[in-house]
Amino acid sequence: MNIAFLGTGIMGAPMAANLIAKGFAVAVYNRNAARLGPLVEKGARACATIAEAVAGADVVITMLGLPGDVEAVYLGDDGVIVHARAGAALIDMTTSSPALARRIAEAATVRGLVALDAPVSGGEIGAINAKLSIMVGGDRDAFERMRPVFEAMGTNINHLGPAGAGQHCKLVNQTVIAGTMLGVAEGVAYAMKSGLDPAQVLAAIGTGAAGSFLLNGLGPKMVSGDFAPGFMIEHIAKDLRLASDEAAGMGLDLEGLSVALRRYASLREAGRAREGTQALIRSYV
Amino acid sequence: MNIAFLGTGIMGAPMAANLIAKGFAVAVYNRNAARLGPLVEKGARACATIAEAVAGADVVITMLGLPGDVEAVYLGDDGVIVHARAGAALIDMTTSSPALARRIAEAATVRGLVALDAPVSGGEIGAINAKLSIMVGGDRDAFERMRPVFEAMGTNINHLGPAGAGQHCKLVNQTVIAGTMLGVAEGVAYAMKSGLDPAQVLAAIGTGAAGSFLLNGLGPKMVSGDFAPGFMIEHIAKDLRLASDEAAGMGLDLEGLSVALRRYASLREAGRAREGTQALIRSYV
Repeated sequence: MNIAFLGTGIMGAPMAANLIAKGFAVAVYNRNAARLGPLVEKGARACATIAEAVAGADVVITMLGLPGDVEAVYLGDDGVIVHARAGAALIDMTTSSPALARRIAEAATVRGLVALDAPVSGGEIGAINAKLSIMVGGDRDAFERMRPVFEAMGTNINHLGPAGAGQHCKLVNQTVIAGTMLGVAEGVAYAMKSGLDPAQVLAAIGTGAAGSFLLNGLGPKMVSGDFAPGFMIEHIAKDLRLASDEAAGMGLDLEGLSVALRRYASLREAGRAREGTQALIRSYV
Repeated sequence: MNIAFLGTGIMGAPMAANLIAKGFAVAVYNRNAARLGPLVEKGARACATIAEAVAGADVVITMLGLPGDVEAVYLGDDGVIVHARAGAALIDMTTSSPALARRIAEAATVRGLVALDAPVSGGEIGAINAKLSIMVGGDRDAFERMRPVFEAMGTNINHLGPAGAGQHCKLVNQTVIAGTMLGVAEGVAYAMKSGLDPAQVLAAIGTGAAGSFLLNGLGPKMVSGDFAPGFMIEHIAKDLRLASDEAAGMGLDLEGLSVALRRYASLREAGRAREGTQALIRSYV
């Protein structure tokens, strides 16, 4: 199966590498061609344009930045929908807008293509270790056909419903993370201000009802002041904006999500865009 | 070692039972004497007054409701401090105010007693199974002497610092829970409104970065509408009020905590005081 992989950044590069490792023929494209070198060394074919990358591809995978990038790459004049060959499956793994996922799926259908939205969670480590959670929306038959492709990149792979359902599920995930991060940061802030030893507090509470992946993974980094990014503030801020807009459109008032979005947006504007999400503690103490 | 156990409700009764099971001689007291029967069957000695219960006790343990109850039981005219025998150790395991814990410790010292604050987490199940997390503040030597008592009731037992430190640690725990519950409820609300299968969404996201004890334990109950209490709204509302007051006193603006407190207080006023904390979903959808 020939795969075109568009967008080879922090997440895309290891995902493409895992596809190569599983024996897929992978053509790669990036706006910044310099990013392609390490993948070419692993056996990828570097392409200078989207058209060149997707021309012979049975599967087109995208891992991009903003919804605007997704829209341009798929629906632009020189984009994937125009250039993909008939019968190809298009898989957008960017965290993006459910409505845009539906528009892409409709445009794909018109041209005899099929599009899936398949955002992931698990971060750079999950991408490197092929242990991503993959949340898929779109045609179920196409999902089943693409299962070997997904299994090369992840372990917890779920089909959630029609086009856009994968994006909705990912935005649920980010909404849960938003509140959980508030709890972790506010608890650590309280511990620091109260004169307790925050590291000892984390050990005392981490195994009980307050325990979470984020408390146990990022709480200690908040305490030690380690703000190196596992997942960057600019990305969580983008995702929470998407979730907040979707929630508002459904008539939901998600106050915790709003608080987290506002604080992350402030940190981004304050020059912390490329710090990890644990820098949320800096908005409190 | 003779123990007086005051307050034998949902948490106190199984905690006292575990002390009896470990061979301690336990005298029990409850405002509502009818609550004492099952413990007497297990070997406890029922007492009609605080004075009677604490008269011969080496250790006095309290598991009460509100800080006002704690204040009355310890500092009242007919309370523990007046009636405890010299050298006794007083252990308040209620979630209460750090400042009150310090006042009780000071009053105890004046009378030749020693007081520890030792709130717990783990809920009724943890109490029954002797697997509570116990967060202790106060004199370290007394803590070490009381270790066999704590070990009869819990597993993750930590000394956090001077009087009040146990309460502070518990309020950190509740602050983390507050934000995490916002995330879980808001994520489930989004999933329900977006037309996804919320149970399937929980399965898709529960093993990743959004995962927590609360997401995996209470998320499914939110989806199924099971609001039977593991931990009641009236209790979380009390705890979050304490945490919020303490945070404000330290100059912290914990917005997530404030949102959770306001929503839980509203649910309590709306007649849901004795539903479980997962009924937070009802404030969204």
